[in-house]
Amino acid sequence: MDGLNMSRRIRRTPYTDRVEKVGVRGFSVVNHMLLPKAFQPSVEDDYWHLRKHVQIWDVSCERQVEITGPDAGHLVQWMTPRDISKSRIGDCLYIPIIDANAGLINDPVMLKLAEDHFWLSIADSDVLLYAMGLAMGRGLDVKVSEPDVSPLAIQGPKAEDLLALVFGEHIRKIGFFKYGWINFQGTRQLIARSGYSRQGGFEIYLEGSQLGGALWDTIWEAGQSLNIAPGCPNLIERIEGGLFSYGNEMTRENNPLEIGLEKFCCLDNSINYIGREALQKIAANGVSQKLRGIAFDGSPCPTCSKPWPVMVGSVQVGQVTSAVWSPRLKRNVGQAMITRGFWDPGQPITVHNQYSERHSGEISDFPFN
Amino acid sequence: MDGLNMSRRIRRTPYTDRVEKVGVRGFSVVNHMLLPKAFQPSVEDDYWHLRKHVQIWDVSCERQVEITGPDAGHLVQWMTPRDISKSRIGDCLYIPIIDANAGLINDPVMLKLAEDHFWLSIADSDVLLYAMGLAMGRGLDVKVSEPDVSPLAIQGPKAEDLLALVFGEHIRKIGFFKYGWINFQGTRQLIARSGYSRQGGFEIYLEGSQLGGALWDTIWEAGQSLNIAPGCPNLIERIEGGLFSYGNEMTRENNPLEIGLEKFCCLDNSINYIGREALQKIAANGVSQKLRGIAFDGSPCPTCSKPWPVMVGSVQVGQVTSAVWSPRLKRNVGQAMITRGFWDPGQPITVHNQYSERHSGEISDFPFN
Repeated sequence: MDGLNMSRRIRRTPYTDRVEKVGVRGFSVVNHMLLPKAFQPSVEDDYWHLRKHVQIWDVSCERQVEITGPDAGHLVQWMTPRDISKSRIGDCLYIPIIDANAGLINDPVMLKLAEDHFWLSIADSDVLLYAMGLAMGRGLDVKVSEPDVSPLAIQGPKAEDLLALVFGEHIRKIGFFKYGWINFQGTRQLIARSGYSRQGGFEIYLEGSQLGGALWDTIWEAGQSLNIAPGCPNLIERIEGGLFSYGNEMTRENNPLEIGLEKFCCLDNSINYIGREALQKIAANGVSQKLRGIAFDGSPCPTCSKPWPVMVGSVQVGQVTSAVWSPRLKRNVGQAMITRGFWDPGQPITVHNQYSERHSGEISDFPFN
Repeated sequence: MDGLNMSRRIRRTPYTDRVEKVGVRGFSVVNHMLLPKAFQPSVEDDYWHLRKHVQIWDVSCERQVEITGPDAGHLVQWMTPRDISKSRIGDCLYIPIIDANAGLINDPVMLKLAEDHFWLSIADSDVLLYAMGLAMGRGLDVKVSEPDVSPLAIQGPKAEDLLALVFGEHIRKIGFFKYGWINFQGTRQLIARSGYSRQGGFEIYLEGSQLGGALWDTIWEAGQSLNIAPGCPNLIERIEGGLFSYGNEMTRENNPLEIGLEKFCCLDNSINYIGREALQKIAANGVSQKLRGIAFDGSPCPTCSKPWPVMVGSVQVGQVTSAVWSPRLKRNVGQAMITRGFWDPGQPITVHNQYSERHSGEISDFPFN
């Protein structure tokens, strides 16, 4: 059984009343906050709809860690192996955060609002406390806080048309992983061309919880002619698209190189960050495992909530991190951490799911086309 | 609707297979891990059973933050306003952790394992990342990690008899908020007289996930003659007993003095900790609100997942943090943060629940007898 017991500790969002009204069927919990995870009638229907139309997603759980002050840039750079020195105001940057052993702590998107003002739009771990600890420990001149910002994502091929209709044609000019601004009820709100799908779209970083209901309603009503539906990060679309989930594909047990995040890691000595030495050593030795795609046969696989073994003959060569049935490919697809020597695309494998069923398959590249 | 979507990010525990087998009906998520929250047939039945018999609770989500090394004691003291200098090996200490503004970050139980070795048994926030940040920022000589420790609680009036039966009579000598040791399958395991109920009992801090199933089964089988049942922290019993929940009764918006945690706060300058100055200032000025009990009439109240207003006439004087119907007292009871001037026991109030129903009641003391 999978009921979720509610309490104030698991925070509602400015949009929770609305998602309840439109029939949310389940939640997950991210950053101590509700994340809708299914709408009627099924994740498969949500998937097909997302690929064709436009959806409105409550992703308030993408909390912002706001870092301001003279040492703000210094603190952010210290936390990530990605060189942020060239980033400009208006940029969104994907920045892995690692510990002294190069273990992944989070993988937020950094929004540079000013030279001394950043938001880190985080995955599921308390980066706020980590940044506060680093700043207090080192005596940095920064303020670290969680502002009242609740992202609302508009995703799908019709997202741009819908938002141009509501907020003006200028939003079409916002580049991928860039942000701009819209006006809403006399307030200026940040809008980025980003989101946790491969179908295109935007995220509105709504500042001011009290505006949440009105923002949802405005977009919802304007979207009726475009067949808008409520949605959420879709497991099928995410896995097919090769998008990673912190806590599933990566934890503090993993370094960014085994996740394939090399391009976000500066490996020379030009910048200074926590974990640099460990990461350089891993890079020099080569990683012992890598995150790979897998595709496998058999009936639609169940929910993956345990590390399913990936076998080659009688040898375990890895474990599944996420998996789902793809109704488009008519196969199961997944992501898995695979040992060196077995990670080449085409390598035959057997997946043992948590109900002792076996599936034949092979290692694959991302994304699944 | 309140389904919980599972994924590997929401970690299973060494006991999850067992709680599923005995019919868990719902979970919460604490520290990125499953916490069972209801068993058949109802929370009310669980409550009556807990007061009479013995229950086995999967509280693995009470993760341990292990701090070792020459600066370990220094780091722990820096994190809490409680003076830990007198604590001894074998002690469990409740230690609020506060930020520079005296806002509560967590309220763990500290277990002192050696002069340079501590476990912090945490509530729902990533104290691990905070401690790591402080240590790295300040360059402290410590190691901060999450060991493979999964607490299993045995609660209820028959808990001592059951555990004496299984592990030996010596466990009867363990004092309240002290710990001792038991042997299990050739391993030495920590056992504390503690737990998140007022019915007495112990927590076994099982080290080694692979032993989880066997430990559960051993206690479960021995408990059959004592009418053992699966259970979990019980909302009715917790509120009646005046136990607080981090994330519900307190967040970073609250300081320990308004939660009634004065006795855990050293307010002079004899020790140095983060937030001391802020806390001294609050103490000097007096708090503007306090956590209080409330009791109120009407039909059994719904789940409190929003801040229900507490009114005196047309003035809002506070908000409910937790509330539940007490089948023993035949009234609703709760905890609420109440403004100065209205917090005296007996003060008449009206509670407005999230379905716009009104309940008449009054301010009360803890616990509810």
